[in-house]
Amino acid sequence: MTSEASDENKLIETLSGVTTATLTTILLKKGLRNVWLRGARPLNPGQPRIVGRAFTLRFVPAREDLATPESWSSPTSTRAAIEAMPEGCIAVVDAMGVTDAGIFGDILCARMHKRGVAALVTDGVVRDVAGVRATGLPVWCNGVAAPPSVAGLTFVNWQEPIACGGVAVYPGDMIVIDEDGAVLIPASLVEDVAALAPEQERLEGWIMGEVEAGVPLPGLYPPNAENKARYEASKK
Amino acid sequence: MTSEASDENKLIETLSGVTTATLTTILLKKGLRNVWLRGARPLNPGQPRIVGRAFTLRFVPAREDLATPESWSSPTSTRAAIEAMPEGCIAVVDAMGVTDAGIFGDILCARMHKRGVAALVTDGVVRDVAGVRATGLPVWCNGVAAPPSVAGLTFVNWQEPIACGGVAVYPGDMIVIDEDGAVLIPASLVEDVAALAPEQERLEGWIMGEVEAGVPLPGLYPPNAENKARYEASKK
Amino acid sequence: MTSEASDENKLIETLSGVTTATLTTILLKKGLRNVWLRGARPLNPGQPRIVGRAFTLRFVPAREDLATPESWSSPTSTRAAIEAMPEGCIAVVDAMGVTDAGIFGDILCARMHKRGVAALVTDGVVRDVAGVRATGLPVWCNGVAAPPSVAGLTFVNWQEPIACGGVAVYPGDMIVIDEDGAVLIPASLVEDVAALAPEQERLEGWIMGEVEAGVPLPGLYPPNAENKARYEASKK
Amino acid sequence: MTSEASDENKLIETLSGVTTATLTTILLKKGLRNVWLRGARPLNPGQPRIVGRAFTLRFVPAREDLATPESWSSPTSTRAAIEAMPEGCIAVVDAMGVTDAGIFGDILCARMHKRGVAALVTDGVVRDVAGVRATGLPVWCNGVAAPPSVAGLTFVNWQEPIACGGVAVYPGDMIVIDEDGAVLIPASLVEDVAALAPEQERLEGWIMGEVEAGVPLPGLYPPNAENKARYEASKK
Amino acid sequence: MTSEASDENKLIETLSGVTTATLTTILLKKGLRNVWLRGARPLNPGQPRIVGRAFTLRFVPAREDLATPESWSSPTSTRAAIEAMPEGCIAVVDAMGVTDAGIFGDILCARMHKRGVAALVTDGVVRDVAGVRATGLPVWCNGVAAPPSVAGLTFVNWQEPIACGGVAVYPGDMIVIDEDGAVLIPASLVEDVAALAPEQERLEGWIMGEVEAGVPLPGLYPPNAENKARYEASKK
Amino acid sequence: MTSEASDENKLIETLSGVTTATLTTILLKKGLRNVWLRGARPLNPGQPRIVGRAFTLRFVPAREDLATPESWSSPTSTRAAIEAMPEGCIAVVDAMGVTDAGIFGDILCARMHKRGVAALVTDGVVRDVAGVRATGLPVWCNGVAAPPSVAGLTFVNWQEPIACGGVAVYPGDMIVIDEDGAVLIPASLVEDVAALAPEQERLEGWIMGEVEAGVPLPGLYPPNAENKARYEASKK
Repeated sequence: MTSEASDENKLIETLSGVTTATLTTILLKKGLRNVWLRGARPLNPGQPRIVGRAFTLRFVPAREDLATPESWSSPTSTRAAIEAMPEGCIAVVDAMGVTDAGIFGDILCARMHKRGVAALVTDGVVRDVAGVRATGLPVWCNGVAAPPSVAGLTFVNWQEPIACGGVAVYPGDMIVIDEDGAVLIPASLVEDVAALAPEQERLEGWIMGEVEAGVPLPGLYPPNAENKARYEASKK
Repeated sequence: MTSEASDENKLIETLSGVTTATLTTILLKKGLRNVWLRGARPLNPGQPRIVGRAFTLRFVPAREDLATPESWSSPTSTRAAIEAMPEGCIAVVDAMGVTDAGIFGDILCARMHKRGVAALVTDGVVRDVAGVRATGLPVWCNGVAAPPSVAGLTFVNWQEPIACGGVAVYPGDMIVIDEDGAVLIPASLVEDVAALAPEQERLEGWIMGEVEAGVPLPGLYPPNAENKARYEASKK
Repeated sequence: MTSEASDENKLIETLSGVTTATLTTILLKKGLRNVWLRGARPLNPGQPRIVGRAFTLRFVPAREDLATPESWSSPTSTRAAIEAMPEGCIAVVDAMGVTDAGIFGDILCARMHKRGVAALVTDGVVRDVAGVRATGLPVWCNGVAAPPSVAGLTFVNWQEPIACGGVAVYPGDMIVIDEDGAVLIPASLVEDVAALAPEQERLEGWIMGEVEAGVPLPGLYPPNAENKARYEASKK
Repeated sequence: MTSEASDENKLIETLSGVTTATLTTILLKKGLRNVWLRGARPLNPGQPRIVGRAFTLRFVPAREDLATPESWSSPTSTRAAIEAMPEGCIAVVDAMGVTDAGIFGDILCARMHKRGVAALVTDGVVRDVAGVRATGLPVWCNGVAAPPSVAGLTFVNWQEPIACGGVAVYPGDMIVIDEDGAVLIPASLVEDVAALAPEQERLEGWIMGEVEAGVPLPGLYPPNAENKARYEASKK
Repeated sequence: MTSEASDENKLIETLSGVTTATLTTILLKKGLRNVWLRGARPLNPGQPRIVGRAFTLRFVPAREDLATPESWSSPTSTRAAIEAMPEGCIAVVDAMGVTDAGIFGDILCARMHKRGVAALVTDGVVRDVAGVRATGLPVWCNGVAAPPSVAGLTFVNWQEPIACGGVAVYPGDMIVIDEDGAVLIPASLVEDVAALAPEQERLEGWIMGEVEAGVPLPGLYPPNAENKARYEASKK
Repeated sequence: MTSEASDENKLIETLSGVTTATLTTILLKKGLRNVWLRGARPLNPGQPRIVGRAFTLRFVPAREDLATPESWSSPTSTRAAIEAMPEGCIAVVDAMGVTDAGIFGDILCARMHKRGVAALVTDGVVRDVAGVRATGLPVWCNGVAAPPSVAGLTFVNWQEPIACGGVAVYPGDMIVIDEDGAVLIPASLVEDVAALAPEQERLEGWIMGEVEAGVPLPGLYPPNAENKARYEASKK
């Protein structure tokens, strides 16, 4: 394994232990309030947290001359996009929040799973949901609809900047998904965030213990000087 | 059984083996993109696919002089509509997408079940959901709300053309519902669609097998000439 | 126990036996159509019905100079509001229907549970949902989001009149929540409603028995004079 | 002129002198809060108030097999509906709030004007707006769009109960339109409202004079006993 | 005139010469992106820019037991609020974006004008629009509707923090309104912003002159070092 | 002038004489229902019809690390995009329907006008509207807002396929704009549409004359065989 790949693995391992709730608090302290992808909920309950780099796909609205079953054979089809996805990436799909046409069904999800794609995240919906579930691909989406993508959407391209759930996503941004949804960490901030996050998780764990012991919230969360000192003492 | 009834039963049996995802693809190839009823999701998980003819009901917004508890005793009430429903029909209710007044509660759903109604489909919501579940009536709806229909809706009539979930539904159109939602097949197209659907399902099954065997998507789905030939060969 | 506290307990006990569906019908007959809080759904299935007095909290939109992590230490923070909540109250939070910033996470919910708060009701969402579930606090909300409240909301104050899910809620109004959602009974009408509700539930139970016995709906629900007489006779 | 026609003319003349703002206040005092048609704004400024009986038309969503240019020649087309409109009626069109397909263009509006239709009111939009303006037909609508009705809507029928702008409109209800929009008076309440309205207008005129003279609002609007007495005295 | 009043007058005079577009750019550079009140458009064209301190009013949704014509005589009515407004203030009304009930009509607007209120700003609508125009009160609102406030809203109180058009407004914040809408300057930032704004207007005026002379945009707007130097030279 | 340029000029001249209403009818007959850009209304009244090729710009949502005043100096800024616009093009801007941040103000519009851009079309809004009007650039947009683009949007690139007002727009598609809004003609269909349109306008002109002469609509519009013959005769 190259040292670069090893660094990436460590980043992903670290971030896998941090809730998206904690990540958004850290990002807000850095001035980023808009990093949570609206409308992307886990299709299946009980999914563990998943972390990976964004591989983006982009749709625009359906136009009857472009959005046809024939377009599925085009060199810039969703099929070709899937073949370009690297192992471990998270496919992030800009469906413009359209909820009455499924971007992918069981066959495309099966192929993504086969290629080692870590998860699919979209502000749109999937179709043939029983089949999609059977593929084992983790999916965060905005629901389910029977119609094919071309009933409402025209596929444009992959690995472009996109809008997904009201957030700008660039190829290579880090995506973390858990039960609270999908959060983006800009590529340039990933290392910085990964360095801060575990300490924040530890602090919140200590605070929760205090709450369980009956300590009132003011002065505890966030901790004032006295409680900060108690926390520091507790770490020794 | 008359030959007509027997034909209808065969249609329903055939369509019961086809996903709504496949049906929407076939209908799109015939030029119909808008056949999926938005906002109608299964109230209970694990429901098998249900097929039946649409029996329509229509609401307009509540007007305080018309939408009253007294209206429940009117000759054109929802109660009278239910008594007119034939066995095996699917009640399709235009609630204009209103989600803060339940169109039916447990008592009306119990009576529908008693009369042999196959399912209830609406872009509105139901009330007294614990009771509705207990009746055993399959329900596809847009959620749950406590208030009675008259808090938000005035009942107008039954067996008229309606809008349900953004789709025009005429009495007698065929409705197919599964986990992907509710799809309408116009009455005039039912036989044609039922003739095409099983072959499409077989083809997609074969494609899924290929994907599982590691075949890339371009050229496979949809199949090019070579893969079409392989599929045809596989059928022998 | 004072006689006043004993009266309150009896009211709560009575209302705990009445569905929110029945309550909204009774309130509509008194001219109140708008008493159901839109967007407040139970976070966990199978929750029993909960009844309590409203303790209100109010948010306005986030302004970057006011909605900061530092504001969490302010004397009018959500933390201080929680410390003011009496045992048995239901916290009702006006989040203006914002669904992309969680009003509370696991630590605040744990403290509310510790203080004996009966439930949390909001037209907004919660964050750190796995942690919130673990606290045991019953929550009726509009979903889940990772970002902190300050990403989208500024906390203002507690025990003021609020809007929650399109309904005006005043401190001290009675709140009843079950699977159909959250219903408000104005403080001035609670005793009156509690007096009428059990009889309505009995009547509906008798009607359901008739439906199961095959009686058609017209004349039965609502009952005409003949069926009213049969019902009265059945009570003896 | 028959005595019935003369009565109708007197009603219309009386209501032509009353603002829709005053009418909604009177209707609210009778328990009707939902009588104002959302989304119907005057296409041209400076239109005088218009009063007439509702002649209703109903659309449902476009279905590609039904909503075609060929449907314009059907016996139940919008063309046939227009030929059935009596002189002096107000055409009220349920377009389900669709704003991206124009229900009528210049030719249909010209024919309505020719037939003596008093006005067109809709929660939808018109097309070919320059031409529509040239016809002289007063129009209250939700904007303008180039596409034909069949791009988004299927015409169903006329003189049925409809929903228009969130209000239930029945054929024969009275419609009053001015710069504040379109208000419905249920047919059964027209005479009663027409009897109360002029006095309310007179009172408000007197109050406005007091405001201009510098009288503070509390006790003046609505008037307390003292101000009521002053008003009564002023009438002599 | 006190020195404090004189300072306030100077602030208002300075800000009256700055577009709201320029103010939002300055505020964004200070980290405030959310200061423009959505839905508040000038009722009349050609209104000059107006500047004043916010006097806030707050509504919650209508509840039939509270939102009644009788409530207009309550000590906490809108009438009482208007009598508390100081000369020169801008009334900012939180109507929760409700557009189907008019918060004020001609009589209340006439009284506000009489009291020297500088303008009315709301995310709601007004009623009796012809009468409101006649009063001369400048109004920025979200449209027009005939029904009275109590058809959709319950008045709560005045001079509380409010949400208006998605922005948090506190009593005493500075409001600037022109054809681009209404912008809030937090009270604590007013002097700072007023100090920066005129220079920004001067710079943009110089840039516009360059554009008219045919200079391309890159390097000009925003100016690079060379163009900055040319601008500085031009000032001498 | 090259023959190609001359052909283009003829196309544009022909289409300048056809209403967008007529164009949408012709496109619908070819199977295209979705060609009208929602939310693009003329900023100024009385604008003549404008025709030109689409030059596209694309925004995604604001992210605080990308959408900054500094980004205005980037090589892929809106400034650079404007310098790439050819004379006579129509700039079509995908602002994702965002209405609370103005994509361009007076300076950028002045430069576009200077470069000979025929018009600006967007589903977003402009800022500094008084200044924009003064530039003389024709603008079709969704309103006006004071904040700068970076308050809500991140600029991505130009001459990519975009979504604008719910329609897929590719660089080089033909755009026609008049009082009914903006309509797209796919590049591949322009010649075909231009060949059909003038005859359709002539026919509708003849029908309007018949309506003015009192002919009823059924059989006239669309014309039956008899009226078609009368029309053909009228042309001689």
